[in-house]
Amino acid sequence: MTQRRLHLNAFLMNTGHHEASWRLPQSEPHAHVELGHYVELARIAERGTFDSLFLADSPQLWGSVAQRPAGALEPLTLLTALATATEHIGLIATASTSYNSPYNLARRFASLDIISGGRAGWNVVTTAGAEAARNFGLDAEPAHAERYARAAEFLDVAAKLWDSWEDDAVVADKAAGVWGDDARIHPPRHRGRYFGVEGALNVPRSPQGYPLLVQAGSSEDGKAFAARYAEAVFTAQQTVEDARAFYTDLKSRTARAGRDPGHIKVLPGIVPVLGSTEAEARANERILEDHIVYDHGVARLESLLQLAPGTLDLDGRLPADLPDESAVEGAKSRYTLVVELARRERLTVRQLIGRLGGGRGHHTFAGTPEQVADRIESWFTQGAADGFTIMPAVLPSGLEAFVEHVVPVLRARGLLRTEYGPRQTLRERYGLPRPANQYVTPGTPAPALV
Amino acid sequence: MTQRRLHLNAFLMNTGHHEASWRLPQSEPHAHVELGHYVELARIAERGTFDSLFLADSPQLWGSVAQRPAGALEPLTLLTALATATEHIGLIATASTSYNSPYNLARRFASLDIISGGRAGWNVVTTAGAEAARNFGLDAEPAHAERYARAAEFLDVAAKLWDSWEDDAVVADKAAGVWGDDARIHPPRHRGRYFGVEGALNVPRSPQGYPLLVQAGSSEDGKAFAARYAEAVFTAQQTVEDARAFYTDLKSRTARAGRDPGHIKVLPGIVPVLGSTEAEARANERILEDHIVYDHGVARLESLLQLAPGTLDLDGRLPADLPDESAVEGAKSRYTLVVELARRERLTVRQLIGRLGGGRGHHTFAGTPEQVADRIESWFTQGAADGFTIMPAVLPSGLEAFVEHVVPVLRARGLLRTEYGPRQTLRERYGLPRPANQYVTPGTPAPALV
Repeated sequence: MTQRRLHLNAFLMNTGHHEASWRLPQSEPHAHVELGHYVELARIAERGTFDSLFLADSPQLWGSVAQRPAGALEPLTLLTALATATEHIGLIATASTSYNSPYNLARRFASLDIISGGRAGWNVVTTAGAEAARNFGLDAEPAHAERYARAAEFLDVAAKLWDSWEDDAVVADKAAGVWGDDARIHPPRHRGRYFGVEGALNVPRSPQGYPLLVQAGSSEDGKAFAARYAEAVFTAQQTVEDARAFYTDLKSRTARAGRDPGHIKVLPGIVPVLGSTEAEARANERILEDHIVYDHGVARLESLLQLAPGTLDLDGRLPADLPDESAVEGAKSRYTLVVELARRERLTVRQLIGRLGGGRGHHTFAGTPEQVADRIESWFTQGAADGFTIMPAVLPSGLEAFVEHVVPVLRARGLLRTEYGPRQTLRERYGLPRPANQYVTPGTPAPALV
Repeated sequence: MTQRRLHLNAFLMNTGHHEASWRLPQSEPHAHVELGHYVELARIAERGTFDSLFLADSPQLWGSVAQRPAGALEPLTLLTALATATEHIGLIATASTSYNSPYNLARRFASLDIISGGRAGWNVVTTAGAEAARNFGLDAEPAHAERYARAAEFLDVAAKLWDSWEDDAVVADKAAGVWGDDARIHPPRHRGRYFGVEGALNVPRSPQGYPLLVQAGSSEDGKAFAARYAEAVFTAQQTVEDARAFYTDLKSRTARAGRDPGHIKVLPGIVPVLGSTEAEARANERILEDHIVYDHGVARLESLLQLAPGTLDLDGRLPADLPDESAVEGAKSRYTLVVELARRERLTVRQLIGRLGGGRGHHTFAGTPEQVADRIESWFTQGAADGFTIMPAVLPSGLEAFVEHVVPVLRARGLLRTEYGPRQTLRERYGLPRPANQYVTPGTPAPALV
């Protein structure tokens, strides 16, 4: 029997996930818009036989640009360029269902999937926050439940569009003068609550059928959505107990939704800070914390917690009377995670900011390569993860260190492939089926959409 | 004094602009989705020191797929991949102002401009037709004038977004912990008739400031729009007289709009069909015509002329009582061009379809390389063009033939550069200024937007 293997997803972000990473001597402060930087990262991840690259996104400029690198190359555009610089690795772009049209976005993912030979993935987000809404003619963000209802219809329409060409719609009969078979083109004729989409896509069905569908929200709405649609889930979990509970819950929700629980891969985020000794790893972590500008952190925390500016005291604790998650319209699960982290570990605001600086709520772990591999193996074997989203604190050095020092340990333990082998689609890498075409086998909706 | 030089723009389209091109033995019927095909075309055009590549677009699947290759890679996605495969050539993507959001589209063009080192161009279209409208929740296309009003506001908002970062907004002061200067970020705070866009773009200002702004509509609304915004104009002109009239009119409209008429480049489309002798060129043209499936052509012509199916007789002429252009809501200038062509040359429907098959109303010219060069030179020196949009009937062979045989003649006559020389932005290739930032020099609106 083949040993169960880890999946690894590299979450790329300009100079790294730690907010102070750009201040280190080795960091290039213009990395956010340098294609060469991202090509280097992609190639390092391919040396580490990662399954995929991952890019976050929101259609807005976040807060103050004083604090850290802001702005980025648009993810699908950047991943298209990276598709030409890589051969095997998957390319997962975040894109919003609240601020896109299904026709436009379905085209772009199908195009990237074709150009990359079946390596496209879509991290489906509903985009919290009024700032993004105000860039699209709205005064306030749509309500959380409303955003998820729109997202569900968006995915249904997108699936119809991706299925609108049968795989063999192009007959290319030169002698008869018949290029395509109109009977194998299926206009969605969709009229729903949020979208009307009449015609077929103007891109043929792509190698994967649909891009790999990824999801990252851990609210109730988010988990229900993931159980129905997602094939991979990126999640922030602070402890192995929380991660196991999340994993078990999501797998059983997926089964209850009528899907194979093996067809949803759970990939918690981890921020590894490496050192050749434990002391060196802690020192590296300390260097990063020492570069944090705490004023920025306070402002950001006040914004997340929906507190008035000036409420928080750096050396005090969070207020005891914070509202419950259910009263929050924004990033619900992030809100709860931060509040629980502060309370569980009795952190001051300063300590909390230090902990969040590394990966905004993701599991930060400083240690030797063996210790990081141990942590990964223990979560993996205890039913807390199918793999991990690696979020290096500093880039490219943190990804390079992970690939040079942790990857060999994981390979030696038989937990990670040693080479890619033949070309595969991203779905094949993650052990997921290619969706059937709903117009070819009606009554058998596509696997992800049961 | 430097000799005035031609600009050349290569309009790429799957197996070529002739509708029957895919049926030729040398054509690859799956070229529409093959990146390798487009990389080959781009490299041929770069050998010919073209200024730019050009891709058409409409967010819909056109009519029947039986007739000719349909569907395509989404243009900005494809051009991003081509940016990594080329070094000098400009990359012009068509995108609709009716079916995009300014924030999303401005990001994508800025990202392509950064990735390509300043080689992005945007062919601004308003997208005619109900089919496209029905893919975006509308029942019918917006009225022609309404589409142009929206396009004007779209460009104004996009310019604000492209200017929302000053060029030196990133200060990257590691010691002080200040990455960007918030005072050099300018949120548009735009509230208009069609769009509300509050915040700054999440992409820094790109090498060209704005992508090269191209326009292709020749209706009254289209020409007014071009005079105000466009820096290059792609137009269909059948005769040198018509082309001169158009050229003169557009330059004077541009001057009346307060802009330098030298800052709008007129690039009529030309479909060259080459042969080593005139007889061979005509034979090559005949081979293409012989591969046309005329039933398809009749249906398409009836659709353009807004006639009921079955109205037209292949061997008859167009009806005498066609409505005037002013009564048409769709592609107005194309409508008039086709009707006038048929009447001027007293063409039967069959002959008209043969003429349109090559380039849908663009100037088709069969001849030897010397004759094609003569035609180009004569239009260029008679004040009918600043350059040409080359639309090969068959691809890649037609582009290759043009570069191998016509380009050397143009170079020998001093009409075309012999090499690219140092790297330049697309604007620099076309001799156009980089727009000033409207927030840095208020009161001096950006050149393209005077």
